[in-house]
Amino acid sequence: MRVVIVGTGLIGASMGLALRRGGVEVVGLDTDAENLSRAMELGALDATANDLVGVAPEADVVVVAVPVGAVAETALVALAAGAAIVTDVGSVKGPIVGTIESARPDLAERFVGGHPMAGSEQDGLEGASADQFVGATWVLTPTGHTSAEAFSAVRDLVGGLGAEVIATTPDQHDRLVAVVSHVPQLAATTLMDVAASAGEEHATLLRLAAGGFRDMTRIAAAHPGIWPDICIANREAIVAGIDDYVTALEQVRDLVSDADRAGILEVLERARAARRNLPVGVPTGERLAELRIPVPDRPGVLAEVTTLAGSLGVNIADVEIAHSAEGAGGVLVLVVALRSAHQLEAALVQRDYHCSVTELA
Amino acid sequence: MRVVIVGTGLIGASMGLALRRGGVEVVGLDTDAENLSRAMELGALDATANDLVGVAPEADVVVVAVPVGAVAETALVALAAGAAIVTDVGSVKGPIVGTIESARPDLAERFVGGHPMAGSEQDGLEGASADQFVGATWVLTPTGHTSAEAFSAVRDLVGGLGAEVIATTPDQHDRLVAVVSHVPQLAATTLMDVAASAGEEHATLLRLAAGGFRDMTRIAAAHPGIWPDICIANREAIVAGIDDYVTALEQVRDLVSDADRAGILEVLERARAARRNLPVGVPTGERLAELRIPVPDRPGVLAEVTTLAGSLGVNIADVEIAHSAEGAGGVLVLVVALRSAHQLEAALVQRDYHCSVTELA
Repeated sequence: MRVVIVGTGLIGASMGLALRRGGVEVVGLDTDAENLSRAMELGALDATANDLVGVAPEADVVVVAVPVGAVAETALVALAAGAAIVTDVGSVKGPIVGTIESARPDLAERFVGGHPMAGSEQDGLEGASADQFVGATWVLTPTGHTSAEAFSAVRDLVGGLGAEVIATTPDQHDRLVAVVSHVPQLAATTLMDVAASAGEEHATLLRLAAGGFRDMTRIAAAHPGIWPDICIANREAIVAGIDDYVTALEQVRDLVSDADRAGILEVLERARAARRNLPVGVPTGERLAELRIPVPDRPGVLAEVTTLAGSLGVNIADVEIAHSAEGAGGVLVLVVALRSAHQLEAALVQRDYHCSVTELA
Repeated sequence: MRVVIVGTGLIGASMGLALRRGGVEVVGLDTDAENLSRAMELGALDATANDLVGVAPEADVVVVAVPVGAVAETALVALAAGAAIVTDVGSVKGPIVGTIESARPDLAERFVGGHPMAGSEQDGLEGASADQFVGATWVLTPTGHTSAEAFSAVRDLVGGLGAEVIATTPDQHDRLVAVVSHVPQLAATTLMDVAASAGEEHATLLRLAAGGFRDMTRIAAAHPGIWPDICIANREAIVAGIDDYVTALEQVRDLVSDADRAGILEVLERARAARRNLPVGVPTGERLAELRIPVPDRPGVLAEVTTLAGSLGVNIADVEIAHSAEGAGGVLVLVVALRSAHQLEAALVQRDYHCSVTELA
């Protein structure tokens, strides 16, 4: 198997290290020649190249790991050059997937949007690690254009890196990461900025910053390089997320101003319960089940079923389409955690799918 | 030396453990009998008592470590009973110090407000440790009422626990902790609450919460017990702090909405620099200097000089008043880090103090 990685920064190089460890041949490209040779030195690549059009047709998968603003254009070059399957790792999905599908609807079945939730405040390449994605959640965003073959291949690729795969629609992805990633980044940045501007008058202030403040502002120390692009690409969801946050802060402000002890306690208790219930990674060695879902043979079904699973928080441990020997249609086979299988089955039945569930040995 | 600790929760019991390790006799009181006997079992106390009026006169220092709402009343009982010196550990200082000074101005010289910045999300007593305060900043809030003897004794007590001592005025303390502690706590709580309410619709969302979100919301998992009291006691500064934060968030929102790349980058860079400059504890084995400041012999000078040091972020490593053999006045002797000594000297000279600086061997 051969994978071409375009953009050998932290994510690209980490993928290269992990893929090579698994025996995959990795070819890297980067517009920054120094970055590229450093990725080679670190062992993230078997070879370097400088012409995507030349190498794309020979790749099983092209991974576009360039900054968000350049993803769609790069992915379109790879698709037009004849790459079998193309995926990306951009932090925003709606604009990228939308651009690709409207520019080349004829090629879009071979593209699967992706986003590894492997946050790190490491700056660039030197933090690259073959274990970067072990246990991380990797979001894939199939749509009505996406072929089951492309989805399945990308799922296997990122599953092989140790990641857990969740499917959502591109727009839902963008709303969700605004809430759990983009708005928190800006909230931390703003909190630090407000404290620092008060701190110019009072050197004492920053001396008083205890562990909680340090925790809250840690991500504000991250390299800002990628953030302007992300903020602009996902600005609609981010603006909505900040507005929700400001509204909630103003409610808390009023509770404090009114000395409403019970109201303050209620918010604190509710948030505490939510924080304590935050999932901490996926249990390993979990029992799995196979769902077999007879489906009409059209790509929209893949996106509908997998993103339905995603909306229930269900990982897709494996996926394939078993085509019928005769006629159209086939069977979509999903492998998920056993404990989630019947919940997913019920949701599918509600949407008029038939479904059988078998526990895997 | 004998110290009476009223309230044997996490802070009280940790102080007891540390003081006893240093050879101080510690007597504990708590309205919760179970808490008190557990503190005794943990080795935080030499003895328990149940009558503050009875034990206060025998104590060198009474430490009031009860919830914020009960501090002033308890401290007044100890002062009226004849305690030599009283201090507290409440997270809010203005209302406490103000209540004590207006209720009993005649006794207020023996009271020094205090607040250890030893944040912990540990719940209660079981997290108590003799090392709880090592390297932590401990704020003292002397005022015009505070005697140099009381300040010096409390400074030595908390310095002996391993803490670094900073002096501020009570009101400045409250504004500063609103910025670095109370508002961040409510900001984390609110962020978690907003995400969790979105999460009810999308189980996926919380699966996507990466390390940054976890860091930011960690303090939202803290036991909410103490927070309603703190929020109400410090509500003016907290409301002002939330208002500042909301204003800053709305500015960031507008930068995102306007796709103002340069503006977004500027805020991120500024916050990053501030976060990277956040002091990370005090260097040990630092060279010290002694400042000798001839002063009129009135308590207001102590507060003025020490809180001036505090406003420059200067720890007070030691303090005493050398009274003149004849006549009024004396010399205030401050020990501070050598690197801060000349900055403090310049600030004092600007305020018409005379001052000599000697490096200590």
